[in-house]
Amino acid sequence: MSEQIKVIVAGAGGRMGREVVKLVLGDEQLELAAAIGRSDAGRDAGELVGMQTAGIALVSSLEEALTSVQADVLVDFTTPEFAYEHARLAIQHGVRPVMGTTGYTPEQIDELDHLCKDAGIGGLIAPNFSIGVILMMRFAAQAAKHFPHLEIIETHGDHKLDAPSGTAVKTAEMVREVRKSFKQGNPNEKETIAGSRGGEFDGFRIHSVRLPGVFAQQEVIFGAFGQSLKIRHDSYERAGYMPGVKIGVQKVMEYTGMVYGFERFVD
Amino acid sequence: MSEQIKVIVAGAGGRMGREVVKLVLGDEQLELAAAIGRSDAGRDAGELVGMQTAGIALVSSLEEALTSVQADVLVDFTTPEFAYEHARLAIQHGVRPVMGTTGYTPEQIDELDHLCKDAGIGGLIAPNFSIGVILMMRFAAQAAKHFPHLEIIETHGDHKLDAPSGTAVKTAEMVREVRKSFKQGNPNEKETIAGSRGGEFDGFRIHSVRLPGVFAQQEVIFGAFGQSLKIRHDSYERAGYMPGVKIGVQKVMEYTGMVYGFERFVD
Amino acid sequence: MSEQIKVIVAGAGGRMGREVVKLVLGDEQLELAAAIGRSDAGRDAGELVGMQTAGIALVSSLEEALTSVQADVLVDFTTPEFAYEHARLAIQHGVRPVMGTTGYTPEQIDELDHLCKDAGIGGLIAPNFSIGVILMMRFAAQAAKHFPHLEIIETHGDHKLDAPSGTAVKTAEMVREVRKSFKQGNPNEKETIAGSRGGEFDGFRIHSVRLPGVFAQQEVIFGAFGQSLKIRHDSYERAGYMPGVKIGVQKVMEYTGMVYGFERFVD
Amino acid sequence: MSEQIKVIVAGAGGRMGREVVKLVLGDEQLELAAAIGRSDAGRDAGELVGMQTAGIALVSSLEEALTSVQADVLVDFTTPEFAYEHARLAIQHGVRPVMGTTGYTPEQIDELDHLCKDAGIGGLIAPNFSIGVILMMRFAAQAAKHFPHLEIIETHGDHKLDAPSGTAVKTAEMVREVRKSFKQGNPNEKETIAGSRGGEFDGFRIHSVRLPGVFAQQEVIFGAFGQSLKIRHDSYERAGYMPGVKIGVQKVMEYTGMVYGFERFVD
Repeated sequence: MSEQIKVIVAGAGGRMGREVVKLVLGDEQLELAAAIGRSDAGRDAGELVGMQTAGIALVSSLEEALTSVQADVLVDFTTPEFAYEHARLAIQHGVRPVMGTTGYTPEQIDELDHLCKDAGIGGLIAPNFSIGVILMMRFAAQAAKHFPHLEIIETHGDHKLDAPSGTAVKTAEMVREVRKSFKQGNPNEKETIAGSRGGEFDGFRIHSVRLPGVFAQQEVIFGAFGQSLKIRHDSYERAGYMPGVKIGVQKVMEYTGMVYGFERFVD
Repeated sequence: MSEQIKVIVAGAGGRMGREVVKLVLGDEQLELAAAIGRSDAGRDAGELVGMQTAGIALVSSLEEALTSVQADVLVDFTTPEFAYEHARLAIQHGVRPVMGTTGYTPEQIDELDHLCKDAGIGGLIAPNFSIGVILMMRFAAQAAKHFPHLEIIETHGDHKLDAPSGTAVKTAEMVREVRKSFKQGNPNEKETIAGSRGGEFDGFRIHSVRLPGVFAQQEVIFGAFGQSLKIRHDSYERAGYMPGVKIGVQKVMEYTGMVYGFERFVD
Repeated sequence: MSEQIKVIVAGAGGRMGREVVKLVLGDEQLELAAAIGRSDAGRDAGELVGMQTAGIALVSSLEEALTSVQADVLVDFTTPEFAYEHARLAIQHGVRPVMGTTGYTPEQIDELDHLCKDAGIGGLIAPNFSIGVILMMRFAAQAAKHFPHLEIIETHGDHKLDAPSGTAVKTAEMVREVRKSFKQGNPNEKETIAGSRGGEFDGFRIHSVRLPGVFAQQEVIFGAFGQSLKIRHDSYERAGYMPGVKIGVQKVMEYTGMVYGFERFVD
Repeated sequence: MSEQIKVIVAGAGGRMGREVVKLVLGDEQLELAAAIGRSDAGRDAGELVGMQTAGIALVSSLEEALTSVQADVLVDFTTPEFAYEHARLAIQHGVRPVMGTTGYTPEQIDELDHLCKDAGIGGLIAPNFSIGVILMMRFAAQAAKHFPHLEIIETHGDHKLDAPSGTAVKTAEMVREVRKSFKQGNPNEKETIAGSRGGEFDGFRIHSVRLPGVFAQQEVIFGAFGQSLKIRHDSYERAGYMPGVKIGVQKVMEYTGMVYGFERFVD
């Protein structure tokens, strides 16, 4: 990979976007082509993230970026409402979309796949770029084949709105595919404090802990006669997703069509 | 302690009772005076617990034991319905009751205290003989003064009927005494699976995990800006309560009156 | 499996052997044919393990058992010095050996395999019957492909003689097979207390904790930029190995030849 | 506290110093009087830490700051070589030193105490500003009175030079004060890989794990018959120390003399 991959970062002012800017500016194999951030338009991308001046001012729209610079890849951590439109726009300009957003219909993914193929470029939609999270979910599903009794405990910062987390639900769904459905626990168990046994999913329980100071953690606990097996992942900071983002940026250069799910690249 | 303390074990056929029999038979400072077990009456106490023959056959009632042998202490792990009556009966015969049962009214405890004092002997009612559990609860209450954000996760075997556990509720009550009451988490948080945020107690959450293979575990997690503090206790087997029972048996020889709570002896 | 599998238990007086006796007596699919225990010869097998009288007295040698009863399987948790001889003897009598012992040379395993095949029966040598431990080791090896930085922490009771444990070394060997060898940590790191960085294996560290109350635990921790992945197994008691032993007893009825390693049966 | 406390930050370009600058700029009760950072002299303090322009340019020496601005408190996270001199200089200018550095002799602390008293101001030398770490050490020492078998496992990033960590050694020293000295583990235990049993301190073991992604964690594990008690602290980022720094800044306004150790303020 002797040449640098030219990257446009959308949502550069957001929490994930800033990390992507840092990644691109700090990695010799990557080059920042443009950065988009409506409320930070005009600011220097480097200064925005506390690094040296980069000489690249943020612009306020993706279209502006795509028409003014030459780029290989778009990394987009904006919001679901822009998800489809941004991907389509990028492909139109021959720029490979690496979308960290959710909110696509199956039809949209299908259409984006066709657009990518027509353009002869690759694309990636990945709600999750964490290799560790992917391994945790995979191991949990493998263990569930042997240990049908399990509970999931996920812990996030106390500002989080929804419980359980998307990762916990995804894990539960993967477990459900391999586990014969049944209701765990004592059939006569009763809660003296409502909710203490957690949320039920296909007969097993999910517990959502919310505490300040925590970024994102999940533990899947399997219990069997005389033993426990625990698979636990701790994310300490958004920066931990960046190695996955970089792999996505590199991979998308190598194939044609739209890939859904980063797990495809974790063997 | 040159002389052995003579111990009567009530509920000797039960799971805790068997451990007490093992403790007494295996400890040189203790001597088994009698063992009571309705459905095991006639069996040898040693053989009952998989040890060498002890030469002491189980009898079927406490009264029978109290009238036929000389003893110093009664260790009673029966059920709440016998709690008060057994303690009263023991005191009547000059035998110090060490009761591992719950189910006393404050008036009954008061009366037993007077009976002990009149008889010039000590007594102990202890729902919990675990030094480790007592320290865990104490540390949790101390930490809550500095870290008001906490959640409790307790894990027990999947046959357990009630959730949360008595220890979790006791811990929560001790925390409540020192923590300014407030509701943790995002005020707008919502559960997509009901119960996933756990049971609420004074604004913080308790989660009850039930899995085969586990005996009794509890973790109290405190979260603050940039840090977590965790206090965790794992009980692996009933035998782990026996050092506490022995301390109770020894202590009860040294004072007069009825003590409620083993924590008194853990400084 | 309409008919019961007739099982001879060797080493019945040992700690693992007692659990096997309990398993066989308590499982409707299994039948105790004989039990061997030199120092407990003559005692009833049921009473030995604290269950009801079984009507089977322990004998003092395997040969005695093999010549006096008809059996399908030998489960043997004796010591390495008897390992080979017991397996050979069982095969000679048409009894399938399920050996929980170590101490075989590759040549011996090869020879036992031939003997099994000649006799048209199956055999199993399994230093480890824990499905959970096997999954832990397997997941660790899979994770090491993606996360080359790891450390192993194993915890056992404080009577254990050797450190690290056999499971830790086996795990480390499996990791070594997939991990590019390199020395972790700061190249200039220094120990102010010798040994604090643990034992080095192929550039990563193994830590052996020894504490009373613990049976057997192991955690493999992977660290990467912004995240940790932990795989942990806790064995609480010997009984936890029995489901694996039962699977071994059942499997050995279904094939011909000697299998080394229980992991073959964990997919 | 109607008036803001005016704070000078020394070592503002360092990793801890940057967090202090963020704290002071972001807290309404504090005001940034000056910031010192040799290699960043001239840069704006706000921009240095990725915040809005603060209008305060870094200067290159503490003396320059002390002579040019009026301040209440110096917060100093420089290096041990400047520790004593910076504290002395601050006191000379009537500025209360809050020193996050180590490297003082007992005589120097004594002298600084006298200087503070003569000047009628307070001072604080605190190698550790984490309330959570202080509680962890305190609980560990309390638990060691009841559970003499323990091991310490500390985990830090893999760039750390020394092992064990200062906090682990401090914890071990506090435990030693209350624990009857004895050597844990099997007296005949042997390491097949040297160092696997960890570093020995007064008969118990300390294990130092070094992995990328981790900031600072410590777990103290107590083992007893049938149970474990664990006290664990996780620091996720330097920012987690700032609430303690702020308490230090506030407290130092209220007394006279030099206090050594932040634990004085954690009851």
